[in-house]
Amino acid sequence: MKKIKDVEKMVQLLLEGDRRSAARLITWVENETKEHHEVMRLVYPHTGQAMLLGITGSGGAGKSTLTDHLISKFRAQGKTVGVVVVDPSSPFSGGAFLGDRIRLQKHFLDDGVYIRSMASRGYLGGLSKATYDVIRIIEAMGMDIVIIETLGAGQDEIDVIHIAHTCLLVHTPNMGDDIQAMKAGIMEIADINVLNKADLDGAENCLRHLQNALSVAHMEEGEWLPKLLSTVSVASKPGDIKGINKLVTAITEHQEYLKESKAIDRVKYERVEQELGLVFKDELQKMIFKGLKGTGKKREYINSIIEGENNPYSIVEEVLNTYLKTKSKKK
Amino acid sequence: MKKIKDVEKMVQLLLEGDRRSAARLITWVENETKEHHEVMRLVYPHTGQAMLLGITGSGGAGKSTLTDHLISKFRAQGKTVGVVVVDPSSPFSGGAFLGDRIRLQKHFLDDGVYIRSMASRGYLGGLSKATYDVIRIIEAMGMDIVIIETLGAGQDEIDVIHIAHTCLLVHTPNMGDDIQAMKAGIMEIADINVLNKADLDGAENCLRHLQNALSVAHMEEGEWLPKLLSTVSVASKPGDIKGINKLVTAITEHQEYLKESKAIDRVKYERVEQELGLVFKDELQKMIFKGLKGTGKKREYINSIIEGENNPYSIVEEVLNTYLKTKSKKK
Repeated sequence: MKKIKDVEKMVQLLLEGDRRSAARLITWVENETKEHHEVMRLVYPHTGQAMLLGITGSGGAGKSTLTDHLISKFRAQGKTVGVVVVDPSSPFSGGAFLGDRIRLQKHFLDDGVYIRSMASRGYLGGLSKATYDVIRIIEAMGMDIVIIETLGAGQDEIDVIHIAHTCLLVHTPNMGDDIQAMKAGIMEIADINVLNKADLDGAENCLRHLQNALSVAHMEEGEWLPKLLSTVSVASKPGDIKGINKLVTAITEHQEYLKESKAIDRVKYERVEQELGLVFKDELQKMIFKGLKGTGKKREYINSIIEGENNPYSIVEEVLNTYLKTKSKKK
Repeated sequence: MKKIKDVEKMVQLLLEGDRRSAARLITWVENETKEHHEVMRLVYPHTGQAMLLGITGSGGAGKSTLTDHLISKFRAQGKTVGVVVVDPSSPFSGGAFLGDRIRLQKHFLDDGVYIRSMASRGYLGGLSKATYDVIRIIEAMGMDIVIIETLGAGQDEIDVIHIAHTCLLVHTPNMGDDIQAMKAGIMEIADINVLNKADLDGAENCLRHLQNALSVAHMEEGEWLPKLLSTVSVASKPGDIKGINKLVTAITEHQEYLKESKAIDRVKYERVEQELGLVFKDELQKMIFKGLKGTGKKREYINSIIEGENNPYSIVEEVLNTYLKTKSKKK
């Protein structure tokens, strides 16, 4: 293990905005090296100030393009921006689902922007614990805004809606009916719905459809009413997106609503609750399983269940008791 | 708590095929009552003999209809059939996604068939631990075949592919391209791909598309090559599905392959491995969190993280240490 002093130094550099330290710390966290816990212990106190912006939607909805333009707008406002792109790679074919990160490349030379791609937990299985840690690390760099871009399908989408302060759900006119129906419930909890590619056939129809879905949303008095905006990428002017300024305004309005209504407290609470739950499940299991590793005990347990001699519930109790005995002996 | 003798009696009735006992035991398991672990301890030794058949696919793909006809075919072979229908209900709108269980109703009077609907863990979040337990309970009733029908979207689909011995993935010609792409990786690990509603426009195109996707599947020598079949519901003859006999044959062939190649051992191992992992994560957390309940401690922890005074990793260690101390004091 690196000396604690080295980890401290690396985190100190991170706090000063050093990108190389960020990259190394993120690698430690992703690989769950021995430094992992120490890194997070040092990083957490320097987080919680950034605005977290979630961007989610189906593949091909144009999330990267929107992210690209939002970065430029935020930079023009003098704000620094971190981006975490969660790329669900198929556990089967091994390849990345979406490789289209080219548009973001121009920001790589801007010191006020830090972009990191991550794999998700697997196929639609939700954001990995590492994603939450990486967001914290990028916050600690001092970024004013952290954008979390995920494929809107499955648990990833729900997770990002719960972790982000402001969440955009990006739609396109050509989504299948099947997907539309599935999205209906999500629309009410996204803060801003964006119909992108609103120049395509069927856009008006789709806009009406989305408007209807939103109109039945059950909002309490004083609650934020989910917005619906449309955007169009102008092919002839690649630097421009029609509607982008309105989108930035909507984001600012939502931020103001969060502060004025104190809803930000609830949002921050929920974020930490989610993180804590995830860390608990994963870390407890790891700590208590540690003693089993390499002993062949797990295989033995599995075979005893297959043979009808044991069951998972009795095994959990047994493993926990063994762990307790080992621990109390050590004292 | 019910006396252990009562639980034992109830499980005894279950083993004799008593449906009322099955319903009650399932309710205990779903609600995680105090009887839950005892029930599973008694049930496990009587499981592991049934053939587990997974049926998954998008909403509207016709899974219920196929399940309905497969039940009839298996019954005609003299086999008893249990069915677990996993209905993912939206956590947002509260309603069930798919309510179309009407076709299955005719089997409710058949003593050789037991059907149970269950909610999934939430929105595409994977099969709940209760689902695994319920499958075990239905196996213990002595069913020859247990069909697990889930909406093919997200983690549910992957879970059922891993738990079932033979898994059908049901496609339809009118699926969006978006979904098609997402399914490509899954096709190779489904044992049998079914293009249902193969009389619709675009069916030929879709069949070719599916065939292409399968042709690049990487199979080792001697491994099962995923099959592709098509089926058509004949509206004029509601009792009939074109292609159903071929489907039953394909299922039988896959079963024979599993036995002859001994692949069944791996499949059974993976199933138990998955169950064990899930039980570990959930039960450990529950056991160790028990002491925190109602103490307001969790809120305190969350607030300390928000204030930048603490972090999830230190908290997990603290909670585990507190738990250890309480346990060793009791001894």
